[in-house]
Amino acid sequence: VTLEVGGAIGPRASAVVVAVGDELLSGRTVDTNSAWLGRVLAEAGIPVLRRATVADELPEIAGAVDDALARAELVVVTGGLGPTPDDRTVEAVAGLLGTPLREDPVTIARIRERYRARGLGEPPRSNFRQALVPEGSEVLPNPRGTAPGVFVAHRGRWILLLPGVPAEMRALVESFLLPRLPALFPGRLAPIRTRTLRTTGIPESALAERLAPMIAHPAFAEVRVAFLPRATGVEVGLSIPEGEGAAGALSGLEEAMRREIEPWFFAGPDLVDDVAEALQAAGLRLAAAESCTGGLVSGRLTGRPGSSAWFPGGIVAYANEVKAGILGVDPGVIEAFGAVSEPVAHAMAEGARTALGAECGIAITGVAGPGGGTETKPVGTVWVAAVTPHGARAVLHRFPGDRAEIRERSAQAALYLLLSLLREGGPSGPGSATRNGVES
Amino acid sequence: VTLEVGGAIGPRASAVVVAVGDELLSGRTVDTNSAWLGRVLAEAGIPVLRRATVADELPEIAGAVDDALARAELVVVTGGLGPTPDDRTVEAVAGLLGTPLREDPVTIARIRERYRARGLGEPPRSNFRQALVPEGSEVLPNPRGTAPGVFVAHRGRWILLLPGVPAEMRALVESFLLPRLPALFPGRLAPIRTRTLRTTGIPESALAERLAPMIAHPAFAEVRVAFLPRATGVEVGLSIPEGEGAAGALSGLEEAMRREIEPWFFAGPDLVDDVAEALQAAGLRLAAAESCTGGLVSGRLTGRPGSSAWFPGGIVAYANEVKAGILGVDPGVIEAFGAVSEPVAHAMAEGARTALGAECGIAITGVAGPGGGTETKPVGTVWVAAVTPHGARAVLHRFPGDRAEIRERSAQAALYLLLSLLREGGPSGPGSATRNGVES
Repeated sequence: VTLEVGGAIGPRASAVVVAVGDELLSGRTVDTNSAWLGRVLAEAGIPVLRRATVADELPEIAGAVDDALARAELVVVTGGLGPTPDDRTVEAVAGLLGTPLREDPVTIARIRERYRARGLGEPPRSNFRQALVPEGSEVLPNPRGTAPGVFVAHRGRWILLLPGVPAEMRALVESFLLPRLPALFPGRLAPIRTRTLRTTGIPESALAERLAPMIAHPAFAEVRVAFLPRATGVEVGLSIPEGEGAAGALSGLEEAMRREIEPWFFAGPDLVDDVAEALQAAGLRLAAAESCTGGLVSGRLTGRPGSSAWFPGGIVAYANEVKAGILGVDPGVIEAFGAVSEPVAHAMAEGARTALGAECGIAITGVAGPGGGTETKPVGTVWVAAVTPHGARAVLHRFPGDRAEIRERSAQAALYLLLSLLREGGPSGPGSATRNGVES
Repeated sequence: VTLEVGGAIGPRASAVVVAVGDELLSGRTVDTNSAWLGRVLAEAGIPVLRRATVADELPEIAGAVDDALARAELVVVTGGLGPTPDDRTVEAVAGLLGTPLREDPVTIARIRERYRARGLGEPPRSNFRQALVPEGSEVLPNPRGTAPGVFVAHRGRWILLLPGVPAEMRALVESFLLPRLPALFPGRLAPIRTRTLRTTGIPESALAERLAPMIAHPAFAEVRVAFLPRATGVEVGLSIPEGEGAAGALSGLEEAMRREIEPWFFAGPDLVDDVAEALQAAGLRLAAAESCTGGLVSGRLTGRPGSSAWFPGGIVAYANEVKAGILGVDPGVIEAFGAVSEPVAHAMAEGARTALGAECGIAITGVAGPGGGTETKPVGTVWVAAVTPHGARAVLHRFPGDRAEIRERSAQAALYLLLSLLREGGPSGPGSATRNGVES
């Protein structure tokens, strides 16, 4: 390994990310860290120019860091800081830089303390490997684990070693790296302003067609626009380099787009956030009755902190006996129309709010597959229903995709239906069913 | 760019993956292609040594392919084959190799045909950029899109250009690359045998300590061992090059490890799969009562196809009124012990099986945070309970992490508790609560 530092320093700071781990190369683990780092670093003004993923081998790690130092002033390395013998990042970087290792007493004490606090006694000796750091480096306490981050300065460039566990990696970036960046690269960060417009219930092609005139408008020429289709809807990503007029151009385009796509727009990041705010603004509570989504809607609703204020609970009514017994759906209606039907969806939503003591109800009943489809109700056939004090509505969907996708799309469709009803506010007739082949 | 091909050819073939795209570096898109390629190539006997992710720029793409050619005989490039001007992969590789481009008439015809079949008329001229390929290359028809794959031989090495759309990339690998590998690398593929041992309820360091003697045993020297901690438990990845004795060494180590870690082992891939099989083997059905996990357990159980055979449903009992009203938990018990307590967890599990008509019940009640913690019941305090015809048990956990992690760990702990009870089979006394500081 040759240490070649010294590509010319440009006016703008930049970064290279090195992800370490055999499990990444072999595909056992999908690398989500690098994408997260790419986003937060770009927003902070130090874009990632390149990424490398290497094996848990000393020459591989050292070679990749060496190459990265030649390309960028900040090298962020993730992974390989754990307590096991295949965790070699610190050793590789110390070897590359020719720096001896020392045992960090603060880290030793923190490891002991974490073990004691959990009543686990003296930690296994192997854990203390995580206290070895290059001399002269800055040791960054890991608030969520035992492996500390390590920050090394080298000839005007910086190497940041981070654990591979996503939560630990993120915590150290947020608590240490982001606040430190302005001091490391004074006047050389190029922050980007970004906005994401989230939509649901409208296909990408229809969305792109509606937004085309705005995107082509000369006033917004500097704004980059990207369409990102996901199972829960299509996101529209806007970005512009920070600078004079950037904020105005970005918010101008955002406002124009938002007016155009109001019915499908949600603020997010999760549709649940909009639902929660609409419920709280109206002083209403929600109960859920789920068949094919099996708890996904309740799980998302309760993922939001403070949801107990407006969500008393939900019923996962997989068996027809549960639909009848707890939700009070008339077994004769199930018999007559089938469990996947408009009247059952309506009755489930009504039953949920009655059984659980809420003013609003939401229900999903469908065929998620792979089995269970019929000629008239093939896999992907899903009825969603919502009821509020002002009205009730059910919508039939035919979703593409596999079981997981159908369930995810169904959950999103039910939440979207409820949000639409809540937005309309005033009374509307119950049972105004519409047929809808939403694709995205 | 200097073209340096010619690291010595080893006895075994190897590959480097180059992923092209600004959207990968900026983190808008998570690269799942590379992990998938890593897995299928390793299994096919041509491991991925390294990955690079580069921007949509000619020198970046050419530089990464150049570097890859120096390291491995197969270079797989994904992305940058689309119809837009920022799709530059073909141009970059042709430039690197000094090969002129030609317009492929078959691809032109295919693009026209796809447009006609959809009633879209003559394709936009920009689409024909996708028909430009290096002279002498093999053009691989894309069964799912308009951009063909391109296969280029260069001085005994191969470059395969693939679209970045995952379904298109996978289709070309499966239809073209995998069948071609034996002819490209006769006798030089090194298929790998892999096994994954999944555990839950035991920290990584304790697991590593228990398994250290086996890992160090000379009989298993050829087996590579990797520890992969996840919120749901620690995975142990085993891999060994295919060959005489490989199968024996792998299964020998697997068996030895499995005996050592039996209480924490599950077959997976999801713990739900083991729970489902244990339930079905015993002819039992399960009902869930969830407070802080809010539907995650039901969501995972119903994610498994066919779960309606053994899962009638679940109750998300967020409000105490739901715990009392539907699950039949004595309000006096909630008052006396608090909602997050052993007797309430037990009563919820009992209530679930009674209300939903199942022989087994599972319950979770805890403080997921960020609010709601107290001095005696801080955030992360979670009681899980399970009941079967043979016994009942509750376990107290204190989980680290944020709301999402605490919920995920709680769901896993509840499923693990139930599985432990099901494995024990025979009768055991109810209420044998233990205190447990599970970390992983």
